[in-house]
Amino acid sequence: MIIVTNILVTLNSTYLRPLKVMLQSLFLNNPHRTFKVFMMHTDIKTEEFHSLEQFVQANGSELVNIQVDGKHFEEAPILKHYTKEMYYRLLAFKFLPKEMDRILYLDPDILVLNSIDEIYELDLGEHLYAAACHDKTSIKEINQIRLSPYEIDAYYNSGVLLMNLKEQRKVINEDEIFKFVEENKKKLILPDQDILNALYSKYIKNLEETIYNYDARYYNYYKLMSNHKMDMDYVIHHTVFLHFCGKKKPWKQNYNGRFHALYKHYDKMAFRGAYAIGQEIMQPSLRSKPI
Amino acid sequence: MIIVTNILVTLNSTYLRPLKVMLQSLFLNNPHRTFKVFMMHTDIKTEEFHSLEQFVQANGSELVNIQVDGKHFEEAPILKHYTKEMYYRLLAFKFLPKEMDRILYLDPDILVLNSIDEIYELDLGEHLYAAACHDKTSIKEINQIRLSPYEIDAYYNSGVLLMNLKEQRKVINEDEIFKFVEENKKKLILPDQDILNALYSKYIKNLEETIYNYDARYYNYYKLMSNHKMDMDYVIHHTVFLHFCGKKKPWKQNYNGRFHALYKHYDKMAFRGAYAIGQEIMQPSLRSKPI
Repeated sequence: MIIVTNILVTLNSTYLRPLKVMLQSLFLNNPHRTFKVFMMHTDIKTEEFHSLEQFVQANGSELVNIQVDGKHFEEAPILKHYTKEMYYRLLAFKFLPKEMDRILYLDPDILVLNSIDEIYELDLGEHLYAAACHDKTSIKEINQIRLSPYEIDAYYNSGVLLMNLKEQRKVINEDEIFKFVEENKKKLILPDQDILNALYSKYIKNLEETIYNYDARYYNYYKLMSNHKMDMDYVIHHTVFLHFCGKKKPWKQNYNGRFHALYKHYDKMAFRGAYAIGQEIMQPSLRSKPI
Repeated sequence: MIIVTNILVTLNSTYLRPLKVMLQSLFLNNPHRTFKVFMMHTDIKTEEFHSLEQFVQANGSELVNIQVDGKHFEEAPILKHYTKEMYYRLLAFKFLPKEMDRILYLDPDILVLNSIDEIYELDLGEHLYAAACHDKTSIKEINQIRLSPYEIDAYYNSGVLLMNLKEQRKVINEDEIFKFVEENKKKLILPDQDILNALYSKYIKNLEETIYNYDARYYNYYKLMSNHKMDMDYVIHHTVFLHFCGKKKPWKQNYNGRFHALYKHYDKMAFRGAYAIGQEIMQPSLRSKPI
């Protein structure tokens, strides 16, 4: 049975290459699913969109263009170093088809290592989102102080968000978000993540981070805390979303992390497609290094 | 066009799992080839052979059983800690079909990362083998002293050997090998590799080690020596045989190397086969952890 699965990505053109790698890993490890990938953006060029569309289609899925006009966020406050794209994933429900119930948002700096079946089918009840925390205790307390008086039960990472669009349409208020940003301008560090946590953390269903938002920097930490249960074998077989958090990215020079070789493997698959689509090598235009 | 490619492996049952991983990586990265895998062994059980045969066949290739009777090497000298299997890869030409011209021998502790086309089609001329050296200068000198008076131009690693069977039938002499072992018993450390080098290093065609026998322990060394040209991207795109040399193996507990995640990825592919054969999940019997 083919199940159509909704994926949301929001990005600018500097992240096109990792986005393609993320999608490749999603496709390869979920061959039983067909995807509708909604790409929310402002500045992706037509030829860039078509190159990505070709790739998505070659993998039996569909790319949907959601180009957001600057006018949509005319009244939104802006922050230094950030564009209005910071609002995209929070307000995506306004741009997605009205009949759509759920969508899975994924950052482009992620590798999908296993089936998304369990997370995608999760019963969300009245929760607005499902997400995982990267709480080391100390960080949680710092964020609590920083974002007070907002009560933060847990500080969720916004890189993987299963969205309950039906509930979001009822609860999430654009003006409330803009007001929050206006009033807390100086406090915000990761604005969309901070907004999510300050305003909606109570309505977030908690996901197990080592399965659904594994921070690639913390292999040793996870392994130690699990009494060595979460070794490399465990990660490769159980972790669904491996998230390359932080400034050092595996597609950049001098990256040095534990999942470097694995990342480059998926990168190669994305740009050569050797066993992406059956046993066929993809067309030469997709084999060269683009972007 | 389908090209049948001859692969030789020699092993005992403790190496069955890594062998399957090696073959999986070979199949995945060479979808345009069909393989005849000749497995030379003494003690592989029938059910183990059939499980491996099923796996090889599911990948469109063929497994050929070459069970070697102990009697074949009755007169061969033995060494402490070594079985007569040490002679298998040197004398394989005696057990392979008489009309066969060439075969590629691969150790089971290898990952095949790219196409074997260039190496398999290599013009061997009158060379007996093609192989790569892992020569750090100091090691070369030690081996020269250890194995004197045999002149060793280079000390080749015997983990990847392209074999010129036609020439081997003319040149390689079983008795000469046994005589050499008898006379040098105390000097031999890695007996088959030592024999290969002492007796035949002059007849070996040299292969580039970073492409055809990349020692997984030396990522930093190769990168440094190449002025950073051989970074992770280079390895993933160019290295054909990634060899997990040394005592620490990626399928063992507490392995910690740079290609750990990549190895476990191929291990998962071998034992689940998610995208090994088109888009189909293999039969459940192959999904559990065997051996």
